[in-house]
Amino acid sequence: MSLTFHHVTLGQRVLFGAGQAATHLAEEIDRFSAERVMVIASPREMDRAREMFAGIEVAVWHDDIAMHVPVEVADRARDAARLGHIDLLVTVGGGSAVGTAKAVSLTSGLPQVAVPTTYAGSEATNVWGMTEAGRKVTGTDDVVLPVSVIYDPELTLSLPVGLSVASGFNGIAHCVDSLWAPRVDPITAALATEGARALAAGLSQIVEDPAAVDGRDQALYGAYLAAVSFASAGSGMHHKLCHILGGTFNLPHAQTHAVVLPYVLAFNAPHAPAAEARLATAFDAPTALAGLQDLRQRLDAPRSLAELGFTAEGIPAVVEQALEAVPDSNPREVTADNLTALLTAALQGADPAGG
Amino acid sequence: MSLTFHHVTLGQRVLFGAGQAATHLAEEIDRFSAERVMVIASPREMDRAREMFAGIEVAVWHDDIAMHVPVEVADRARDAARLGHIDLLVTVGGGSAVGTAKAVSLTSGLPQVAVPTTYAGSEATNVWGMTEAGRKVTGTDDVVLPVSVIYDPELTLSLPVGLSVASGFNGIAHCVDSLWAPRVDPITAALATEGARALAAGLSQIVEDPAAVDGRDQALYGAYLAAVSFASAGSGMHHKLCHILGGTFNLPHAQTHAVVLPYVLAFNAPHAPAAEARLATAFDAPTALAGLQDLRQRLDAPRSLAELGFTAEGIPAVVEQALEAVPDSNPREVTADNLTALLTAALQGADPAGG
Repeated sequence: MSLTFHHVTLGQRVLFGAGQAATHLAEEIDRFSAERVMVIASPREMDRAREMFAGIEVAVWHDDIAMHVPVEVADRARDAARLGHIDLLVTVGGGSAVGTAKAVSLTSGLPQVAVPTTYAGSEATNVWGMTEAGRKVTGTDDVVLPVSVIYDPELTLSLPVGLSVASGFNGIAHCVDSLWAPRVDPITAALATEGARALAAGLSQIVEDPAAVDGRDQALYGAYLAAVSFASAGSGMHHKLCHILGGTFNLPHAQTHAVVLPYVLAFNAPHAPAAEARLATAFDAPTALAGLQDLRQRLDAPRSLAELGFTAEGIPAVVEQALEAVPDSNPREVTADNLTALLTAALQGADPAGG
Repeated sequence: MSLTFHHVTLGQRVLFGAGQAATHLAEEIDRFSAERVMVIASPREMDRAREMFAGIEVAVWHDDIAMHVPVEVADRARDAARLGHIDLLVTVGGGSAVGTAKAVSLTSGLPQVAVPTTYAGSEATNVWGMTEAGRKVTGTDDVVLPVSVIYDPELTLSLPVGLSVASGFNGIAHCVDSLWAPRVDPITAALATEGARALAAGLSQIVEDPAAVDGRDQALYGAYLAAVSFASAGSGMHHKLCHILGGTFNLPHAQTHAVVLPYVLAFNAPHAPAAEARLATAFDAPTALAGLQDLRQRLDAPRSLAELGFTAEGIPAVVEQALEAVPDSNPREVTADNLTALLTAALQGADPAGG
């Protein structure tokens, strides 16, 4: 079959360099000719935001942010931007800071510069989200995409190793799952492969030497590509399964990803030879699964859903939901039988290749 | 050394599918809510442009285009757009059509949709160019970048095999050279690698079966990534050498690329192990050079500069210019001696690995 795809590239400037956040920030503020900057960061991040802005005038410091952006939080940030006659938003932090800035951009059209300090990846997407009375509303709009992203791996040195690994592994899962997600295209596949390569290399180094910038840089760069890929390709089988396990049985997000991913990879790989070959190269291993398993061992990732509190009684409910949720784009058809086998193996931590 | 780079991603929609140009065009015109479309195509391309627009209203058909966009041509196209109250430009064709539309967008801000029929790649860049009294002026401006690009490999079936191979090989050279060009970054390197893979696979298929869409699709897709990579990374050593050989000795563009590339690859590869490994994978060969040589053989590419009319007397002049022109980013330092050796080997068509 001949090549058919739609690919939307979101325009963005990425400035990447260890110890260069302040320099890059000054450059960007200059490039925007911004005169009234609003800095959005959590109270915990505000100190280093102030350091980064030493010598740069800031009109509003805004630390009133919250996870999932409750509408009240969004409204207060919008008011602050309006009253402050702001012409540029700068976020320092992870998903909550970026999410709050996106809410402001959505109604005001204000441009944003993001300085991420985590691997959350919200800075690479045009997706916004807010919660009202506990209900999440999301949407996509290019106006919420940060125009520039400044990555400084030194800002991630304070991320604990465990959190770096969990969050980074989630990124690897995004990359792998992108290869068979509903809207995957060859450009996204190339970026997802590069992201998996960088994350695998970076996480291995972080575990060996958590105080070094090397490793942190590769992981941060890989996490960016993971977000780009996931935003472009959508959720594949792996994320659907993890979402069901998390939502129905309240299993921990990152650990669930680490357990389930090799089983989904073993399940799909024989039916997705191009993805398998790409990932084997990315992991620098004879097969994609061998590379992933080796990485999990080095990262000391959890190996079974049983460890996370899941039990065999839960399997039928997961299977039932998964039969509906797994996208048609999946390279191997899912059935009650093969999903049950996959989940049973993951529950027990059996050899994924044995399934 | 830790990872440091700037990467500017140009936002663009790419709609790719054989036989789908007309459908995609209707979708895009609808998405823009365009009411006054101006179609820009060469007289030779106009017939199939009209076919593609069957059932779509067109305000202006404009076939007054020319290579390198003389300012008079640009002015007439601008007048036609203004007098026609145009709200969307659509190009069907290669560099001249896109170049003319870019000249219109540059002064009017009008959005463009490009339907490329060659591998020229101008549709993927924000670079414009015009000639006045034989002098070329170029610049970059995001407003000239087509908002959407519609690729239909069926439109390239009429490209003769020889031209497809020459133009495609130029694309491969862009991909390879991007890996050590001045502004290369890891994202561009990943896209260039994917472009080299697609072009190598596509060109091999085109030579075997010129009437098939398979092969044409991979080559067209690869040519797009070659343009993206080259625009982002700039000219590396290979393009500087070819530019000098072409400019000073009037050697044919595409053939010169095909001869010189393996010598530059052999020259740089030992000093650029990451690029070498990427390209070996892209060419599905034990080494990058082996893959490239195998491809050249299958494509029956010229093997020596002597065949193209170059002689040993020309070498010192090329060396002198190349010492100035080869960018500092090149992984191996160039000297008069090693450049002379490279050019001598290329002149004779000696084994590139023997240098």
